[in-house]
Amino acid sequence: MATDQQHPTGQYPTALGTSTAEEIHLLGHDLAGELMGEVSFGELAFWLVAMRRPSPGELRVFEAALVALADHGFTPTAIAARLTYLSAPESLQGAIAAGLLGGGSRFLGVTEDTGRFLADALAAHSGDLPTDDAGWDELALAAIRDRRADGRLVPGLGHPVHKSGDPRTPRLIAIAEESGARGAHLRLFEAVGRMSETALGKPLPLNGAGVCGAAFADLGLPVDLLRGFALLARTAGLLGQLAEERRTPIANDVYMHVDRHAVYHADDGAPD
Amino acid sequence: MATDQQHPTGQYPTALGTSTAEEIHLLGHDLAGELMGEVSFGELAFWLVAMRRPSPGELRVFEAALVALADHGFTPTAIAARLTYLSAPESLQGAIAAGLLGGGSRFLGVTEDTGRFLADALAAHSGDLPTDDAGWDELALAAIRDRRADGRLVPGLGHPVHKSGDPRTPRLIAIAEESGARGAHLRLFEAVGRMSETALGKPLPLNGAGVCGAAFADLGLPVDLLRGFALLARTAGLLGQLAEERRTPIANDVYMHVDRHAVYHADDGAPD
Amino acid sequence: MATDQQHPTGQYPTALGTSTAEEIHLLGHDLAGELMGEVSFGELAFWLVAMRRPSPGELRVFEAALVALADHGFTPTAIAARLTYLSAPESLQGAIAAGLLGGGSRFLGVTEDTGRFLADALAAHSGDLPTDDAGWDELALAAIRDRRADGRLVPGLGHPVHKSGDPRTPRLIAIAEESGARGAHLRLFEAVGRMSETALGKPLPLNGAGVCGAAFADLGLPVDLLRGFALLARTAGLLGQLAEERRTPIANDVYMHVDRHAVYHADDGAPD
Amino acid sequence: MATDQQHPTGQYPTALGTSTAEEIHLLGHDLAGELMGEVSFGELAFWLVAMRRPSPGELRVFEAALVALADHGFTPTAIAARLTYLSAPESLQGAIAAGLLGGGSRFLGVTEDTGRFLADALAAHSGDLPTDDAGWDELALAAIRDRRADGRLVPGLGHPVHKSGDPRTPRLIAIAEESGARGAHLRLFEAVGRMSETALGKPLPLNGAGVCGAAFADLGLPVDLLRGFALLARTAGLLGQLAEERRTPIANDVYMHVDRHAVYHADDGAPD
Repeated sequence: MATDQQHPTGQYPTALGTSTAEEIHLLGHDLAGELMGEVSFGELAFWLVAMRRPSPGELRVFEAALVALADHGFTPTAIAARLTYLSAPESLQGAIAAGLLGGGSRFLGVTEDTGRFLADALAAHSGDLPTDDAGWDELALAAIRDRRADGRLVPGLGHPVHKSGDPRTPRLIAIAEESGARGAHLRLFEAVGRMSETALGKPLPLNGAGVCGAAFADLGLPVDLLRGFALLARTAGLLGQLAEERRTPIANDVYMHVDRHAVYHADDGAPD
Repeated sequence: MATDQQHPTGQYPTALGTSTAEEIHLLGHDLAGELMGEVSFGELAFWLVAMRRPSPGELRVFEAALVALADHGFTPTAIAARLTYLSAPESLQGAIAAGLLGGGSRFLGVTEDTGRFLADALAAHSGDLPTDDAGWDELALAAIRDRRADGRLVPGLGHPVHKSGDPRTPRLIAIAEESGARGAHLRLFEAVGRMSETALGKPLPLNGAGVCGAAFADLGLPVDLLRGFALLARTAGLLGQLAEERRTPIANDVYMHVDRHAVYHADDGAPD
Repeated sequence: MATDQQHPTGQYPTALGTSTAEEIHLLGHDLAGELMGEVSFGELAFWLVAMRRPSPGELRVFEAALVALADHGFTPTAIAARLTYLSAPESLQGAIAAGLLGGGSRFLGVTEDTGRFLADALAAHSGDLPTDDAGWDELALAAIRDRRADGRLVPGLGHPVHKSGDPRTPRLIAIAEESGARGAHLRLFEAVGRMSETALGKPLPLNGAGVCGAAFADLGLPVDLLRGFALLARTAGLLGQLAEERRTPIANDVYMHVDRHAVYHADDGAPD
Repeated sequence: MATDQQHPTGQYPTALGTSTAEEIHLLGHDLAGELMGEVSFGELAFWLVAMRRPSPGELRVFEAALVALADHGFTPTAIAARLTYLSAPESLQGAIAAGLLGGGSRFLGVTEDTGRFLADALAAHSGDLPTDDAGWDELALAAIRDRRADGRLVPGLGHPVHKSGDPRTPRLIAIAEESGARGAHLRLFEAVGRMSETALGKPLPLNGAGVCGAAFADLGLPVDLLRGFALLARTAGLLGQLAEERRTPIANDVYMHVDRHAVYHADDGAPD
């Protein structure tokens, strides 16, 4: 099924890890001498994707967003990871992988969807970007209406629990402002929040997953990979969940609860 | 299949993420007010598992080890992640999960195996720990010999490429020394390296995956979860690999290479 | 984040597996007495999704399609599974999962995409279905043109290797005809093949993944789950790949090939 | 990290899928002409691993075991798959992979563990195999005692629910007997059941996962891959679970149940 070859030299180019018998390089730098002890793990994660080191201000925003996304308690993905660990405790990688596999459209995808929505709206805007709130509001209103005209929800807007405001949102905006990294995506996202009532008939809060997507996009990270940073953050959270499952297990109780409340229900396969 | 219930109160206890309509807590702290912008992502990852904040010195060692483990170039797991992304580019989480699933015994397990080997040797030692190299060497020799008597390899020893020394090893030890976090596991690991020739007939280098396991164990992280930190580090590396696959793809070339060199080989199922 | 409860009775209904101390039921039948030894594995797989037993003719088509989809040699997913098994041989489930995770849009999704394309075209057609080839051709031409007007490819059409025809396609159609299960989706798919030159300017073969999707749809299987049957078939293929990897390993050679042809390439992160 | 090359010809041998522009071969046969419509899916799955076609009797036993293993209701893996599907409904392969990743030591590993335990006991036995129950009982007693002397549980023995007998066990033995495929592994397994009270002080039932492992081993399937057949069977079961989740969802209710019963619990990281 192979299609035409793209690198006819038979070589596999990479700017990431390479090594010789004496040296290990990463990103063109000596791993031991130039990176270990010199860059934080968050800085390296940014660099590995963006192919440039973040400024200190950018790094602060980036790490704050990762912290915001790491763990949200007993989410479906955390429960799935704990149940998998219950079944196969010898394979920690399997439990973490199971947890990450829920990182799709409904729960973890908001970060990427919001970044893409904002980036698309900015790309579609011709002329200079706005210089005041009124200008951003106008742009936001147009973006919301275009989105709704396609019959699609506006990502990053609304939260099932934090109905009157997600506390992560103003905090990340403040950190970005302090750090000199509050850019066009965040400004447009704020305007989306202000315009939600005008456009949709009711005020909706800007959620934390969405504001992280706006912040990542302002940092110049590739919009098609924003979900990846949510997954990285969540890997730390899942490690915490599995460490807690070892100390204070709940997975067997969840399983027992479901098992004991199972009832047979005849079903001919037609949709409920 | 359910067994007896452990939390008869019908509650699910957690010290990680909890939330109300107004607040989001993580680790008993206000996520927005006390954690975002205040702790680095690496610090949070440590805290989520150890249930305590690391000291600045501990954090430096921890992040240096994560940096050391993040990416090793075109490993089998990096190639598997890229091939999965080629096949299912709409599911970034699937490609990362595929990459993590190779985090087993042969390539990523060394970190955990080394930590456990050292912790077991220390636990088996009665009396005070050694206070000089000669004492550590004696303990190391006994630990190597016990391991070999079981017919098992000593983890963390030897490297297929860095035969005369892995540059990450002395660097992480130096960082631990500078940071006041060079403890019993690292000291024993160093002694294992010194004693390898005496015990095994040839000098073998201490590899980088192993030294990270020793450092994690010195930080008091749970030995049964050390593989998890290698997986966390590798998640960042896999993100880098997939970002590069978007810019400079190799997966289709790898596939074509294999496909074009496939030859039919009659096989009756007997081992080769 | 929980939304409103849908089953306020606190029960979990299921028509699949249930058990008491004495009995195990599946699909409302006694597993040991009524299913084991009485239904083939393929029949059970059909029944578990469709919630009805297939007729003998339907089962023959269904199993023929599973056989057609089971293994296609060294595909990216097969290589990914083998590389994962090389890295973590203790976790067979991880290697199989890694292989399945490539079952996405590019390589395994064609089956589902084709079934959905055909089902949508049939659903959009008002009035009676055609009774002759000319009628089906007309319907096919309209469906292709609608699809192309959206800027989308027609799924199931074309093959990188079998350019003059995929041998699975006429065979599955013949089996369906013999079995009395050649329905509207297959007839429309055949017409898509006949009309490809008229609509697209060149004749394109109907591929084997696509014809399986058409056959599954004719069997009344849910269009949104057709990918699942490709995954089931592929699980058997991946088991074969991993059994072969144990007898005649190639994964380490693939890894070495890539590792030895890696070249450092400075990269500023801009798209290539 | 690459080690020495094993196939210096630069070729990748395979006995599975190969193709040319005109033909697709699998297992050395013409896929379209010789396999599709001629072999059942179960038969192909057996053949792909064993590299030989099963006899009709062997196939009946093999498919009966797959049917026995396909679905056990709301197991931890079924719940994990449903929760993953809730979170990422666009990636069916992710939900199935998450379900399979629980196929480890505790819930799905029994099949393989039992097959290996029996195969090891038979391999350790010198001289002819027993010809009567008394002889098998003696061999079983020795095998149980050796296993217990290592401090390990006897796999396949005991069931949390079916305490007075798992109905799958006598049924699979009867099918094997009828099919002429009741071999040494099944006979030894039956003897393990008869000797459980003598050896362990209480009678323990032979469970269904274990009897399937014994049957697979009698069919000559590779002991190190027996878990794979449990995974194949479970893939069909997971498809059924996900199809039902679409018709009669429970995953959100499970999530809500856990979320609503979460309680904060201060934790210093020490084991509970």
